[in-house]
Amino acid sequence: MSQPKEQKPNNLLEKIVSLAKRRGFIFPGSEIYGGLANSWDYGPLGVQLKKNIKDLWWSKFVERREDVVGIDAAIFMNPKVWEASGHVSEFSDPLVECKKCHQRFREDQIKGLCPDCGGKEFTEAKRFNLMFPVRLGPTEDSSSITYLRGEIAQAMFVNFKNVLDTTRVRLPFGIASQGMAFRNEITPGNFIFRTREFDLMELEYFVHESEWEKWFEYWRGQMREWLQDLGVDLKNIHEVEIPDGERAHYSKRTIDFEYDYPFGQKELYGLAYRTDFDLKNHMEKSGQDLSYTDPETGEKFVPHVVEPTFGLSRSVFVALLEAYHEEGDRVVLKLPPKLAPYKAAVFPLVANKPELVSKAREIYQSLVASRYSPGPIAWDDRGNIGKRYYSQDEIGTPYCVTVDYQTLEDGTVTVRDRDTAKQERIKIIELENFIEEKIKT
Amino acid sequence: MSQPKEQKPNNLLEKIVSLAKRRGFIFPGSEIYGGLANSWDYGPLGVQLKKNIKDLWWSKFVERREDVVGIDAAIFMNPKVWEASGHVSEFSDPLVECKKCHQRFREDQIKGLCPDCGGKEFTEAKRFNLMFPVRLGPTEDSSSITYLRGEIAQAMFVNFKNVLDTTRVRLPFGIASQGMAFRNEITPGNFIFRTREFDLMELEYFVHESEWEKWFEYWRGQMREWLQDLGVDLKNIHEVEIPDGERAHYSKRTIDFEYDYPFGQKELYGLAYRTDFDLKNHMEKSGQDLSYTDPETGEKFVPHVVEPTFGLSRSVFVALLEAYHEEGDRVVLKLPPKLAPYKAAVFPLVANKPELVSKAREIYQSLVASRYSPGPIAWDDRGNIGKRYYSQDEIGTPYCVTVDYQTLEDGTVTVRDRDTAKQERIKIIELENFIEEKIKT
Repeated sequence: MSQPKEQKPNNLLEKIVSLAKRRGFIFPGSEIYGGLANSWDYGPLGVQLKKNIKDLWWSKFVERREDVVGIDAAIFMNPKVWEASGHVSEFSDPLVECKKCHQRFREDQIKGLCPDCGGKEFTEAKRFNLMFPVRLGPTEDSSSITYLRGEIAQAMFVNFKNVLDTTRVRLPFGIASQGMAFRNEITPGNFIFRTREFDLMELEYFVHESEWEKWFEYWRGQMREWLQDLGVDLKNIHEVEIPDGERAHYSKRTIDFEYDYPFGQKELYGLAYRTDFDLKNHMEKSGQDLSYTDPETGEKFVPHVVEPTFGLSRSVFVALLEAYHEEGDRVVLKLPPKLAPYKAAVFPLVANKPELVSKAREIYQSLVASRYSPGPIAWDDRGNIGKRYYSQDEIGTPYCVTVDYQTLEDGTVTVRDRDTAKQERIKIIELENFIEEKIKT
Repeated sequence: MSQPKEQKPNNLLEKIVSLAKRRGFIFPGSEIYGGLANSWDYGPLGVQLKKNIKDLWWSKFVERREDVVGIDAAIFMNPKVWEASGHVSEFSDPLVECKKCHQRFREDQIKGLCPDCGGKEFTEAKRFNLMFPVRLGPTEDSSSITYLRGEIAQAMFVNFKNVLDTTRVRLPFGIASQGMAFRNEITPGNFIFRTREFDLMELEYFVHESEWEKWFEYWRGQMREWLQDLGVDLKNIHEVEIPDGERAHYSKRTIDFEYDYPFGQKELYGLAYRTDFDLKNHMEKSGQDLSYTDPETGEKFVPHVVEPTFGLSRSVFVALLEAYHEEGDRVVLKLPPKLAPYKAAVFPLVANKPELVSKAREIYQSLVASRYSPGPIAWDDRGNIGKRYYSQDEIGTPYCVTVDYQTLEDGTVTVRDRDTAKQERIKIIELENFIEEKIKT
């Protein structure tokens, strides 16, 4: 079978949103109530894809590294954390209000006319803080107000001393975390690109000041490697140096990893040199000693921080965009096999031959129960085999296993490869290892 | 070596809290700022234990089952969801205020005197809603107010139709989810037992009304099985039937799985028969058809729901309580091996023999890189071997691998078992399989 030429469609975003909805990757949030602007729910396939990305990241950057440990901190933190970090005073957008319809907009998005009513007069810009305030407990005094965390990084700084005291880490080392952050964004949008709640995966890598540039370059390389793990072609990535005056208040150097989304080149990940800004501020405000003493030289100092930040939803988004291919009338999600929601699908050639069905069920069940838990396995006995292949291609299942008449004679099945559409016969007893070997890559 | 008799200490809670802090399982939240009442951060070991429990649950109840699919929904939902679910009107505690110090308390906790100032006069009880309101976006009208979700169940009801439309599920089937919920509890406390933010793992299992009792019993059995997976002795579990008038507003039958905590018998998990309460309310309030048509009989009906709920933090808590053992002066966390933070530890017998250290490093690195990613591996070359064993016992590492002089001669290592403290010699080439086989149980 010759391969039709691959092509990326022009209306890629619409196709991804439509596929995501139709096959159960991503649904509009609260959809039966008309939705809630820019909220999204992950469906049965989306939740697996997201979990696979999250687990791969954790395995690569925490479990398989000796110099990184993980933490998972509470979303509610003492509000003093957000005063020390600068978020209460600095973390804001300038907003103007239309004098006619009283809607508010980010100043840089107004081109003379109100986007809602066409009004031409606006108030002076006011700073609008992006932190969500929350009142804890039943009292009404202001001391009970805290914030939903606007980033997950602070928990790693606040726990720096606890980690030093309870583990055997030595500089350079990292603290990693995965979790939700919340920002009251004025202009969320573009599918799952920008939402008010979002999952972050992040490392704070603590180094001696004299070595920050070396580690900055090291993590830049690690981020590129991760992008390739995710199936991203690096030609779609632009490493953009953020100039003075445009960086976050804590950063002395930042590189944005920007991606060519269908709606333009925008941020995907970030790599920031946060200096000793956070640890120093927390030392000053908390009165605790957050310095580090080198066990060999005896030098005592406040470590500097290199911070690679990865958005999880954006990782899912980009993995889908990169994986989407049309080949003739076939839609294929060429996800890296280890990220695919289903690791394999098992079919009986036809559904009305009990001996084929029962043999296929047996294989299906043994794969589901297999000791290394390769993730869920799909079952399909509807329609013809060609339709089943197309259905699995569209959701990225790397291998389809078909039980046919020959199976009953010689104990082999056909295994069809998603990307090449080629089939080969494999012995049933070798099937589990065959799939394991393939999906680890 | 004979085994000293096992015993559970009297002050078990203090010992668990202390161990959790000392070894990096669980730290008080925002600790350098004096904490934030009843918030807790998971440290390097705690985050692994929690992840292992979470992943095991997902594998058991979603990935390895054909009749359950997962979702992962936004925390911010349309506020109409919480009106339809009854949370806005019903989800509250009665509060009284001390007229002297103006502190507020749950009515059932006042025994004549204010616990804070000793005052004797209180206001009439007022209902205090446990949902956290949050204002989305920069506008100030009330239409922009929603809530942090008070349970994760609603997302599964709201997405019921999306799941039906995009997957091939047929009744009975379940939708599962893991995620954060938030309740403005008046009296949180008892370590990680009750906090204002908490991780839930939950299934909504949709059935025909005529079969709810059968499935209620089925899931009761599954919950017992899960408790055993977690290492819980079922003699410490009490299945308590919640009588009329004490159940949540949506439930027609509830069994609480209560556990013998050091502070008394209290709720661990819950199993509720929610009837068709939620789907019916959402149908009525949203105007969408959330019924199900049986593909064989053609009967159209609103499914009923059996809901097993598992608290993740409480699972971590109970796993620690059950695992904690003192044997003479040895503290051992007898966690099920697949839940242990480290799967194995590797030691050179002594740290000052380069050939032992380099051989041990080689083994350590090959285990870390092993294809099935059995979780992190510890390395230790401090002090004497006995101290290292004690250190690993205390954090539940099931196997300690020691490289000694014999290793250099015959390619074997000693593998010491945490629970029996017995050692056996294993060939290096068989080590990976040996550990894999053990930790899958």
